[in-house]
Amino acid sequence: MLDYPSLSAVAAVVREGSFERAASALGITPSAVSQRVRGLEERVGAVLVVRGQPCTATDLGRTLCAHLDRVRLLEHDLPTLGGALGPAEGRLTLPVAVNADSLATWFPAAAAAFGREGEAALDLALDDEAHTAARLRSGEVLAAVTAEREPVPGCRTVPLGALRYAACAASDFITRHFPTGVTPEALRRAPFLRFDRRDFLQSRWAGTAHGVEPAGAVHWVPSTHGFLDMTLAGLAWGMHPVAMAQPHLDAGRLVELPPGQRVEVPLYWTVARLHASLLSRLTKAVRAAAARVLVPPA
Amino acid sequence: MLDYPSLSAVAAVVREGSFERAASALGITPSAVSQRVRGLEERVGAVLVVRGQPCTATDLGRTLCAHLDRVRLLEHDLPTLGGALGPAEGRLTLPVAVNADSLATWFPAAAAAFGREGEAALDLALDDEAHTAARLRSGEVLAAVTAEREPVPGCRTVPLGALRYAACAASDFITRHFPTGVTPEALRRAPFLRFDRRDFLQSRWAGTAHGVEPAGAVHWVPSTHGFLDMTLAGLAWGMHPVAMAQPHLDAGRLVELPPGQRVEVPLYWTVARLHASLLSRLTKAVRAAAARVLVPPA
Repeated sequence: MLDYPSLSAVAAVVREGSFERAASALGITPSAVSQRVRGLEERVGAVLVVRGQPCTATDLGRTLCAHLDRVRLLEHDLPTLGGALGPAEGRLTLPVAVNADSLATWFPAAAAAFGREGEAALDLALDDEAHTAARLRSGEVLAAVTAEREPVPGCRTVPLGALRYAACAASDFITRHFPTGVTPEALRRAPFLRFDRRDFLQSRWAGTAHGVEPAGAVHWVPSTHGFLDMTLAGLAWGMHPVAMAQPHLDAGRLVELPPGQRVEVPLYWTVARLHASLLSRLTKAVRAAAARVLVPPA
Repeated sequence: MLDYPSLSAVAAVVREGSFERAASALGITPSAVSQRVRGLEERVGAVLVVRGQPCTATDLGRTLCAHLDRVRLLEHDLPTLGGALGPAEGRLTLPVAVNADSLATWFPAAAAAFGREGEAALDLALDDEAHTAARLRSGEVLAAVTAEREPVPGCRTVPLGALRYAACAASDFITRHFPTGVTPEALRRAPFLRFDRRDFLQSRWAGTAHGVEPAGAVHWVPSTHGFLDMTLAGLAWGMHPVAMAQPHLDAGRLVELPPGQRVEVPLYWTVARLHASLLSRLTKAVRAAAARVLVPPA
C-alpha cells in the first residue's frame, strides 16, 4: 500500500506552497515534512514536489494528491473513523472547477449551503473550459460547472439549466455610439467586449438580432464583474447574465439594446462517479442553487 | 526588414484564434492568411503559430507579435500615416496585465477614460503576479498593475497608492462562529477564505489584530467578487477591499471584525519605456483613476 502519512505531507506542501506552512498545518516540524516527502519520492523513484516559490506538484505528484483526495473522501463515510482523525488531517477540501459566470451569479449560494452543513472546504478553480475535461480525468478536480457539455470517463454529467444573457450598454454609451438608434451600421462599428478568445456571445447576438458581425474596437476583459463594470463605465457594450444586469437595468444605469432578444447558455455539472456522501451533498446544493437562478433544462 | 503584412496576419490569427476569423478581421481570404503565415514561417525557419482550437503563438511567434505591437504603437504617433491605414489595421490593442482586486475596484474607470478618448482597445489579462515580470520582459504585455514591486528591465514603475482591506463576515456567520465575540480561539477555528496560494492577507490580519494563525476550514476562491459573494453568503470570513465592502457594511449585510484594523497593500504601475502617446495617455488615465480610490503613496 501507499504510505499515506507521507502522501499527506506531499499534499500539504502542494496545498500550502511551502514545507514550513505544511509543517504548521500538520502540526509537525518542517524537517519531518521534508523527510516524509523525500522518503516517498525515493520509494516511488520520482520527484513529486517541485521545490520553488511556491512549491508545486509534478504530474505524478498531482495524480497521487488527487488519489489521496478520493481516499479521504471515501474514508469520510466510514463512521467509526470520525473520531480517530485529528482535526487538520480530518478536514476535507474538495477541488472544484467553476466557470466565471456561474461563480458571479448562482454558485456562491451553493457553496454557502454546502459549507454550512459541515467542516469540508472547497478549493475553487476558475474553469478554463479547454482544460476542465483533462483536469476531471486526472482527478485534479472532482467536479466542474461548465458551459460545454463534454462526456468525461468516470464522471456523470447533470444539466443544470441555462444562464440567460442580455445585450447591455450604459446610457451615455448609447448616446455616443447609437445617436440615431441601434442601426446595423452603428452596431457594426461600436466598441464591444469579449471575455476571451472563446467568447462569441456578442457576435452571436449581433448576428441573430441585427444580422451584422461586430467590427468595432474589441476590449478583452477576462472577468465577469470586470465585464459589467467596464460596461457600466461606458467603455463598450457586452452580453451580461440577466441575473447580474437586472438591478442596473432597473436603476437605469444600463440600457438593454433593442430588440431585447436574449441568449441562453446551458450549464452542466460534471462530477466524479464516486459514492461519497460529501460529493452527493455538494451535488444537491449545486442543483438547488442553480434551480433558483437558471432557466430549467428542456 | 521583417515582412509586416505577413506578421500582421500571424498576429490576427493568434488574436482571433483561427485563420477564418483572422481573414474576416483583415478583409482577405483564409487562404491568403494561410499563405502569409506559412511564408513568414518559412523565411524565419520556425513555426510561429500552433494550429489548434484555438490557434496560439509559439514563443518566437509571441515575441514577434509583441514586437509588432510596439511598432504599431510608434507608427500611431506618425501623424501622416493616420489616413493611410485601413480601419481594422489601424486599430491598436494594448495588452495590459491587471491584478484582480484592481480590476474589481478602480481600474474600470481608468479603462473607460482611456477608451473614451480614441479608437485604441485594451486586451486585459488577469495578472498572475508570478508571471507578470516575465510577460513584461518578453513584451507580451506593455504595462501591468501589480501588488508586487519588481523592477523590470526596459520598464518604469510608478507607485499608485495602496488598496485598503477590511476583515469582514456576514452577520449570520458572526452569530454561528463568534457567539461570544471575536476571541482568538474562535478566530483560530472559524472558516476563512484565501484567494490563492500567495494570499496571506487573512493570516496577516489575524496575526496582527489577534495574535493567532487561522486554522479553520480554508475555502479557496480565486475571484475578487467571488470572495465577496462567498462572504455575503455566509461561507467564511475574509479580507475585502474597503471600496467594495463599504456599501455592504453600511447596509448591515457585512460586519467588520473587531478591532476594525485595516491592512494596506501598495499597488504599482509598471510600463514599457516606449515614447508613445497612447501609452502616456493610458498611464495618465490609470494614475487619475487610482488616485480617486487608493490611499496616496507615502
